[in-house]
Amino acid sequence: MRLALGVEYIGTNFHGWQVQKTGVRTVQACVEKALSKIANHPVRVFCSGRTDAGVHALEQIIHFDTPQQRPDKAWLVGANRYLPNDISLKWVQTVSKDFHARFSAYARAYEYHLYNHPVRCALNHIHHTWEPRALDIVSMQTACQYFLGEHDFSAFRGSHCQAKSPIKTIEYLNIEQRSAYILVKIKANAFLHHMVRNIVGTLHRVGLGETPIEWVKEIINSKDRKQAGITMPPQGLHLIRAFYPETLIKSIQNNKT
Amino acid sequence: MRLALGVEYIGTNFHGWQVQKTGVRTVQACVEKALSKIANHPVRVFCSGRTDAGVHALEQIIHFDTPQQRPDKAWLVGANRYLPNDISLKWVQTVSKDFHARFSAYARAYEYHLYNHPVRCALNHIHHTWEPRALDIVSMQTACQYFLGEHDFSAFRGSHCQAKSPIKTIEYLNIEQRSAYILVKIKANAFLHHMVRNIVGTLHRVGLGETPIEWVKEIINSKDRKQAGITMPPQGLHLIRAFYPETLIKSIQNNKT
Repeated sequence: MRLALGVEYIGTNFHGWQVQKTGVRTVQACVEKALSKIANHPVRVFCSGRTDAGVHALEQIIHFDTPQQRPDKAWLVGANRYLPNDISLKWVQTVSKDFHARFSAYARAYEYHLYNHPVRCALNHIHHTWEPRALDIVSMQTACQYFLGEHDFSAFRGSHCQAKSPIKTIEYLNIEQRSAYILVKIKANAFLHHMVRNIVGTLHRVGLGETPIEWVKEIINSKDRKQAGITMPPQGLHLIRAFYPETLIKSIQNNKT
Repeated sequence: MRLALGVEYIGTNFHGWQVQKTGVRTVQACVEKALSKIANHPVRVFCSGRTDAGVHALEQIIHFDTPQQRPDKAWLVGANRYLPNDISLKWVQTVSKDFHARFSAYARAYEYHLYNHPVRCALNHIHHTWEPRALDIVSMQTACQYFLGEHDFSAFRGSHCQAKSPIKTIEYLNIEQRSAYILVKIKANAFLHHMVRNIVGTLHRVGLGETPIEWVKEIINSKDRKQAGITMPPQGLHLIRAFYPETLIKSIQNNKT
């Protein structure tokens, strides 16, 4: 049987999602170890999208196969007992073999959090990137329009990207301001490596007045990574959720409560 | 001259506020080291109320004396540069010698955060205490009334408490529910050691149905520490702010933005 799970984690103290040969602390390694104990056999999990070191997830979706029949609660409560405090399994459900955490996902949503205040914030510092200089939110929001729809996002592609095509479709890209916090919200069918952080790096430059709004269109069209902004630091990035056809998985809620 | 400052910190990786002879990492030690660099002389700071290991502060108030004349910004930006990410100085202002961070404060406010959900939360785990069993919020709120006003709080006093008198006056004690989060908000003229955590420990027992609401009155009247609930873990506790006469310090805002 195949099980799908929602996984929440703080990326701060992990070397990213993916298991590495060097045995460093990764989310996948911790999750597989915990599930293997409940399954009584080695478990290999597949995720909706790998996250880099320092990147957080409110709902990473994973699946794995097992011959073991156990109540959902046994998997959830059992595996959570073997997981560190910075990872939590939020729910589990049985899915058909047609479901694949990565290949069945038709879209992903991320948020990037900036703290825009002259004075540093200690309390949530692992969840945002601090920018002491005033950002022009209206300009940033205006620049967002150029990213919408289908584009070749080569200008925002990390050098280690393994995607087959640089052409992706962005459904929305919005800026929300909550007092000193600036939330960049983005949803696309898929993302290139570092794509969100590179897009935010470009919007960041627009917000600082370093790049005129209209240039963003040219940066996209250039398909040249050197034209776009810096790769923003990982701690501001949050994988919010992945989206799947209702026929493959029961409506899953983001368990952010 | 005397300077007052607002300090924000995450207590997770500190052995509490107070400098210790063993040289372990404390908030006070970090703050004094940073301010000493800007002052060019050893700085000793005084705080509104010491916090234990793991306890956070949104606005701890401190003061120190220096002969140095510097712009506020020089102190703030300068010292923040020498502070780790989990401490931030939020503001600074010159005060008279009549101001004392500890002795001038006429009240303090704390919050205790519980996460009441069958499944653990990873994302904010350093800021709350997890309780998987359902808590009866209405009963907890009802029990709060017994704590209001002036009482001998010996039943809620930690064994290392150095306060001269166990008699304190609680101005408010409220329970707020925000989805799975339960916030216990309390303000009093002063607190005994572990008093908030021990009060929450008693409310927690009421919420679980282990202690009838009316017994809370008897627990208070018993003045017996053994009658009250456990000392709740430190990570749920947040020092919100201290209150001072307006004549001594300009209206200070909680810089939680």
